Amino acid sequence: MIITDLLIIGAGPTGLFTVFEAGLLKIKCHIIDALPQPGGQLAELYPKKPIFDIPGYPAINAGELVDNLMDQIKQFQPGFTLSETAVSLRKIDDDWFEVITNKGTVHRARAVAIAGGLGTFEPRKPDHLENLSQFEEKGVEYFVKDPEHFRDKKVVIAGGGDSALDWSIFLSNVASEVTLIHRRNEFRGALDSVEKVQALKDQGKINLMTPAEVRELKGTNHLEEITIEVNGESQSLATDFFIPLFGLTPKLGELANWGLEIEKNAIKVNNALDYQTNIEGVYAIGDINTYPGKLKLILCGFHEATLMCQSVYSRMNPGKKYVLKYTTVSGVDGFDGSRKEAEKAVVKKID
Amino acid sequence: MIITDLLIIGAGPTGLFTVFEAGLLKIKCHIIDALPQPGGQLAELYPKKPIFDIPGYPAINAGELVDNLMDQIKQFQPGFTLSETAVSLRKIDDDWFEVITNKGTVHRARAVAIAGGLGTFEPRKPDHLENLSQFEEKGVEYFVKDPEHFRDKKVVIAGGGDSALDWSIFLSNVASEVTLIHRRNEFRGALDSVEKVQALKDQGKINLMTPAEVRELKGTNHLEEITIEVNGESQSLATDFFIPLFGLTPKLGELANWGLEIEKNAIKVNNALDYQTNIEGVYAIGDINTYPGKLKLILCGFHEATLMCQSVYSRMNPGKKYVLKYTTVSGVDGFDGSRKEAEKAVVKKID
Ligand SMILES: Cc1cc2nc3c(=O)[nH]c(=O)nc-3n(C[C@H](O)[C@H](O)[C@H](O)COP(=O)(O)OP(=O)(O)OC[C@H]3O[C@@H](n4cnc5c(N)ncnc54)[C@H](O)[C@@H]3O)c2cc1C
Ligand SMILES: Cc1cc2nc3c(=O)[nH]c(=O)nc-3n(C[C@H](O)[C@H](O)[C@H](O)COP(=O)(O)OP(=O)(O)OC[C@H]3O[C@@H](n4cnc5c(N)ncnc54)[C@H](O)[C@@H]3O)c2cc1C
Repeated sequence: MIITDLLIIGAGPTGLFTVFEAGLLKIKCHIIDALPQPGGQLAELYPKKPIFDIPGYPAINAGELVDNLMDQIKQFQPGFTLSETAVSLRKIDDDWFEVITNKGTVHRARAVAIAGGLGTFEPRKPDHLENLSQFEEKGVEYFVKDPEHFRDKKVVIAGGGDSALDWSIFLSNVASEVTLIHRRNEFRGALDSVEKVQALKDQGKINLMTPAEVRELKGTNHLEEITIEVNGESQSLATDFFIPLFGLTPKLGELANWGLEIEKNAIKVNNALDYQTNIEGVYAIGDINTYPGKLKLILCGFHEATLMCQSVYSRMNPGKKYVLKYTTVSGVDGFDGSRKEAEKAVVKKID
Repeated sequence: MIITDLLIIGAGPTGLFTVFEAGLLKIKCHIIDALPQPGGQLAELYPKKPIFDIPGYPAINAGELVDNLMDQIKQFQPGFTLSETAVSLRKIDDDWFEVITNKGTVHRARAVAIAGGLGTFEPRKPDHLENLSQFEEKGVEYFVKDPEHFRDKKVVIAGGGDSALDWSIFLSNVASEVTLIHRRNEFRGALDSVEKVQALKDQGKINLMTPAEVRELKGTNHLEEITIEVNGESQSLATDFFIPLFGLTPKLGELANWGLEIEKNAIKVNNALDYQTNIEGVYAIGDINTYPGKLKLILCGFHEATLMCQSVYSRMNPGKKYVLKYTTVSGVDGFDGSRKEAEKAVVKKID
């Protein structure tokens, strides 16, 4: 069982920055995310693209922003439960909440911040394959959670976009064999990625099959072979893994059943006071909440997280008055014993 | 007369970032600030100090943040009225507002954003000097608005903190003679600054007098001479300028009389919907506003500016529905014809 002060559901930019603001108030955090890596939409959907409206950054790549946020929060030592989806939330008593994941991991916390963005990302599946579900997690994977899982294995990747290109490139150095199949001859992605795949294909490091589609999956306990229709002809290919990367659609999922007020596919919060939901002690921040004037922007999530933390502080320290301190003036004391601070003024004689 | 879409009072971080968000919505901005430079508190009070709670920056110097914001907004070509204080605001008709400064500059705009922070910075004056006001702007200056003003002149600076130290260092390269006087022997400031003053003093580039106080100002039309008590002894010094740098205190000033609802020395706004004041079309954002849950933090000003701009857009484009566009997806089109955009995906055959 994982016990913390503030449990954050969602490791997008909002959830990550929450750890920083909570840390300033001595509140410890743990984050759950369904994805294998932190960063939410930025890491999963557009890691290499520039964002132009982060205040103070004329341009910053989404992946770099995530790295910077991870760096900014590290001294507050957040815990992470990754690759697990929060499926239930219940109030144990006036002081504690319990959140359980699809893998059964139990989390208890004094307050819960739902920073779930647009929800969990559900892979678009190649539903025309009859026995697809039989091979899920037995050779069929929709996310590359841990590349090491594919070390020295035979891998077939399907798809025509950036994910398919980028994972083909990455796994060509890990797997024993990478086959990339796509139903068209043309790929759509960053020029750089398309060119790299071309080069790796020319070097024989990526096996390319276009126009092609997977027709059948075969195997006893685990995937062993797939049938592919290439250019109108059927062909068999021995493989350990099949990774269809056909895009993701976000789904609110289980959290729609937690008794929270839902409006416009988002969680209604008390307008901008502290982003608390209809369940006291449960907050919703970032893309997942809605209130009059709401904008689904990264910078708004940062503000919402900050105001919310004040409310969590009051909840955890009833009666105690919090006096706002500037980081520049008071510094930042990490839970790891580190301290960041402005250079102190000296009082010194000049003679 | 200056005519613009959105007039911003205050060039602190909130006012500056407003130009960006407004620009995305094709709204043109002009900024008034009483200080000679943009940046508000960051530029005036702690330009060399690090801030640790700007999201995505584990640490950034206040001055650098201001530079980055200036860089981020430049393609939207904001106008600036600097070194002037907005002293009156009136509604001309349903569509237009007029704001006039202490120097008589008239501004007209479709909407007004008051981003005035804690107000204008009033210098603490050496009130013991009888004829002080007689020499104001005639040799007595409380801000270094334009260093060139002091080129090849004799300057006496008084004070014991960072401003006195830093301007002495800076002007030692501009003025023909810099005298720094302080009533104690000890200065309080960044170690680096104290050491630089010591070095410049040793090289004869700064004239140091401690413990010392100015006792009298003399001159006919302009300051010509000051009497200083150094170490208990009276001494005369020919000078063109006297710059007392004894600190600043913020004052709401004239804007308290504009008919706005004032609470806790701040302007009350409709809670977080769009930060509009009791005067429709006049908004208050950043440190200067108050609403339940308000925090006087830089990152909150960014959010408030962003939500406000949506409201200004609706005001200026009645009936038109604005659809939020991501900068990553749609790019940023400057008023100067520039365009920032993410690298486009290519559609390309691999063979
Ligand atoms: C292509 C694109 C371009 C964009 N460009 C910009 C831009 O230029 N500027 C801008 O401000 N915004 C932009 N955005 C929007 C921006 O990405 C979002 O506003 C931001 O990601 C929201 O952050 P968040 O932390 O609230 O949610 P998210 O980033 O969506 O993160 C939510 C996380 O919660 C997890 N999660 C959800 N439910 C559960 C659950 N039950 N259990 C476990 N985990 C869960 C998800 O897996 C996800 O990782 C863009 C979005 C896209 C798709
Ligand atoms: C020492 C110190 C350390 C700080 N550290 C942090 C920190 O670590 N993190 C953080 O988030 N915040 C910090 N702050 C607070 C932060 O500086 C403010 O929140 C921020 O400056 C507010 O920005 P603003 O744009 O709203 O107002 P300001 O920066 O105050 O700018 C307002 C501007 O409006 C101008 N103005 C006002 N009235 C008029 C008028 N009538 N006519 C013309 N001009 C006018 C003023 O001259 C000023 O330039 C710190 C503040 C100080 C003093």
